[in-house]
Amino acid sequence: MSNAGFTKTPSPPYYAVIFTSARTQGDQGYSAMADKMVEMASQQPGFLGVESVRGENGVGITISYWENEASIARWKANSEHQVAQAYGKKRWYQDYVVRVAKVERAYAK
Amino acid sequence: MSNAGFTKTPSPPYYAVIFTSARTQGDQGYSAMADKMVEMASQQPGFLGVESVRGENGVGITISYWENEASIARWKANSEHQVAQAYGKKRWYQDYVVRVAKVERAYAK
Repeated sequence: MSNAGFTKTPSPPYYAVIFTSARTQGDQGYSAMADKMVEMASQQPGFLGVESVRGENGVGITISYWENEASIARWKANSEHQVAQAYGKKRWYQDYVVRVAKVERAYAK
Repeated sequence: MSNAGFTKTPSPPYYAVIFTSARTQGDQGYSAMADKMVEMASQQPGFLGVESVRGENGVGITISYWENEASIARWKANSEHQVAQAYGKKRWYQDYVVRVAKVERAYAK
């Protein structure tokens, strides 16, 4: 997934889905699907933005921001996203952790 | 900051401090201070772990995990950390956003 840089989020509260992952070797269709998923997520109601960084060692952190839990649940249940999740589990990720968190406060430089 | 990989966190709830940043050019003492801050944070009461990735374009995401808000507040007020924060603002970061979030649920591969 390309680096999406900074996300302009509204005043809290809102939700963050923190996805920490370690990729397997080789692309195996990952990049195209990752780009497609970001594009699709961006069109979901309640989507606020995404920040994503992957280091040289294959460990990455992707955080998507959402208005509320309902919007997170809807995106998780999206049929094309479910296919991607299954591929991710089977093929693209050695390991991952998903954490769903409520952003209570935020400040910038 | 070096990549700290995956953090083993307890069952939610706990807190995440999400720090998204863009570095300035050059080290300027950053790496040594970042290492020291991770070491110091690790010794704070309530610290649960840290995950940190920086991409080739200088954008990074560092997430520290904490038992509760009190432990976050104590670390923010730590005098050596306050010096580091001031340097960060003035010298090391072009831009940053800090988000404090309560992790409500989590699952792994």
